[in-house]
Amino acid sequence: MHAPVGDLADIVADVLARVRDRAPRVHCITNSVAQNYTANVLLAAGAVPSMTVSPEEIASFVAAANALLVNLGTFDAERRSAADAALGAAEAARVPWVLDPVFIDRSPGRAAFARTLLARGPAAVRLNLAEFAALFGSDGSDEAAARAAKACSAVVALTGIADIVADGARRAIVRNGHPLMGLVTAMGCAGSALLGATLAVEADAWLAAIAALAALGVAGEIAGASAAGPGSFAVAIIDALHRLDRATLRARIKVT
Amino acid sequence: MHAPVGDLADIVADVLARVRDRAPRVHCITNSVAQNYTANVLLAAGAVPSMTVSPEEIASFVAAANALLVNLGTFDAERRSAADAALGAAEAARVPWVLDPVFIDRSPGRAAFARTLLARGPAAVRLNLAEFAALFGSDGSDEAAARAAKACSAVVALTGIADIVADGARRAIVRNGHPLMGLVTAMGCAGSALLGATLAVEADAWLAAIAALAALGVAGEIAGASAAGPGSFAVAIIDALHRLDRATLRARIKVT
Amino acid sequence: MHAPVGDLADIVADVLARVRDRAPRVHCITNSVAQNYTANVLLAAGAVPSMTVSPEEIASFVAAANALLVNLGTFDAERRSAADAALGAAEAARVPWVLDPVFIDRSPGRAAFARTLLARGPAAVRLNLAEFAALFGSDGSDEAAARAAKACSAVVALTGIADIVADGARRAIVRNGHPLMGLVTAMGCAGSALLGATLAVEADAWLAAIAALAALGVAGEIAGASAAGPGSFAVAIIDALHRLDRATLRARIKVT
Repeated sequence: MHAPVGDLADIVADVLARVRDRAPRVHCITNSVAQNYTANVLLAAGAVPSMTVSPEEIASFVAAANALLVNLGTFDAERRSAADAALGAAEAARVPWVLDPVFIDRSPGRAAFARTLLARGPAAVRLNLAEFAALFGSDGSDEAAARAAKACSAVVALTGIADIVADGARRAIVRNGHPLMGLVTAMGCAGSALLGATLAVEADAWLAAIAALAALGVAGEIAGASAAGPGSFAVAIIDALHRLDRATLRARIKVT
Repeated sequence: MHAPVGDLADIVADVLARVRDRAPRVHCITNSVAQNYTANVLLAAGAVPSMTVSPEEIASFVAAANALLVNLGTFDAERRSAADAALGAAEAARVPWVLDPVFIDRSPGRAAFARTLLARGPAAVRLNLAEFAALFGSDGSDEAAARAAKACSAVVALTGIADIVADGARRAIVRNGHPLMGLVTAMGCAGSALLGATLAVEADAWLAAIAALAALGVAGEIAGASAAGPGSFAVAIIDALHRLDRATLRARIKVT
Repeated sequence: MHAPVGDLADIVADVLARVRDRAPRVHCITNSVAQNYTANVLLAAGAVPSMTVSPEEIASFVAAANALLVNLGTFDAERRSAADAALGAAEAARVPWVLDPVFIDRSPGRAAFARTLLARGPAAVRLNLAEFAALFGSDGSDEAAARAAKACSAVVALTGIADIVADGARRAIVRNGHPLMGLVTAMGCAGSALLGATLAVEADAWLAAIAALAALGVAGEIAGASAAGPGSFAVAIIDALHRLDRATLRARIKVT
């Protein structure tokens, strides 16, 4: 345990409160499977999503945004070009951004593109175990995540049954969540977008990542308690995220 | 108060009944974030959506449709080309169409494109306050909406906490709705599509716009009474729209 | 009655159990309206969806998949090119595939493209009555479906109030389902994707098609018993599909 987690429930609650107060704009380059659900998760948390991938206008959107998500799902030439323009605008306007290298384990070209993006300095990378192995060439232990975070100077948020959040110096394990989260498409993508929203209001990207993953995990536990299956779960987790309060976070958060 | 609204609940009920009876085809050029929800809202109301944006085939779809929606969200070269082909087909077949200039306040290029579309004669324009300001360069009072409607010879449906519906001669304020409508992505887009469905069965575009906005607003109030958050609200408003009947409209409609 | 249907409930239950056990990968080239719902239906059944249409990487995804869906909704140049690359990979890796010729009755170009795809040997074609007429030039009797199946050497799954499943030698009528299935966008598309999942674990494509349509139909009946409209129905059918068990299938399945 390398983290000052005693007061983490309150830190997470504070971050979520700032998202609700400031309504940060999160521009998302994401796959068409995930766009609708991602937008609804952001709105439920109090953020304002935008989603255009048109190369002509994406720079305007990103320059006016408070965070950027680059998700590689359904990646085509237009989205690749959009990502390049978006990152240029993000660098110029110092907009923090999140990389979500979806399914890079399935496509060598996508993995290569993810590596070029990683070199452009995301604040955080959120990915699962197979994607972590494809990107960093190592297993998904918390030691490996810490090494990867140090090597790429970004927070690594490696999600699974437990989520590992590491930067070069600190590590945390977030143990909130529910098995039905794995049966709703775009849940990981939405988590990455939520991390964009927390990054927009919390300069410490490691805390922002913990806040996003813990909030979604706790919302998932609440949803799982009443859901009849993945359909009602997908609906209930949005409700739970929208209603998530400090007392619930204090009672449920499991971060070590 | 400039409108004969005494019997508006019945007029709205009649328009909705005609949508259910005739099942008008509404072709939607809309952003990929909104497509699924928009299609489900149209189906719930009794209309039949189609959504292709392929330039090769969109003219066939529009020529066989009863109304067309041109929504500028996630606007790219393909959708711009699709809009041009679609409007050509709509003009030739006299298919009424709705313009929804999503987020033109964020992108100068998109705003310029919206102005060229406005010149091609939509039956109605649905937009929010920021988009209204970007398109018409004025504040969102009902006087300004009326002037804008006169200037562009289209019904202007300016939605917000209250919705203003104006054509060159008449104005109405629709006060139905629920705050959670603002936390469901594509709710405005779906309202524009629903306006397409009502336009398909009601030649008076001003009444068609009132019908669409009042119906969605009343459905929103019903959904809001039971929803636990924006997730369940998004589901419940579709149910409520599907079940909306004359007695409910008479009891709830608030149009002045 | 040409089919050994006495034990069909158990056969269907066995097929669904194999989907849950093996978690087959189903790559879907499908329209952006349907992508999210299709992915969630596949996940609810225990399959693993992927959806990229990028021509550069689709071959990698298909080669690693256990089944492929080619759905023609929202068909554009990119998807046409993707379909060509995907079918090449499917043929090389002997991945079975399903053709869903959405809305070919509305667009001559799309119908022509569907005919070229049909010649490339899908294991099954799922379509509705209007699409059947456009593709095979005949009415939708079970005799006509059987002739079409024989002519194209594929299982024909013609869905409607009752679903006809025919190959060159056998026919079955699946009478499960609920009217609200027609009011949820992408329900047919999701059914085709589910047929991909069953094809991945059942070499007899005729049984695979019966299993997919009966499972979705029974799930629809369960959802319809509690739904307040098409919104809650769309959610509940996913829950029901996820929970579908052998006893429920035995009690409810109606195949002759």
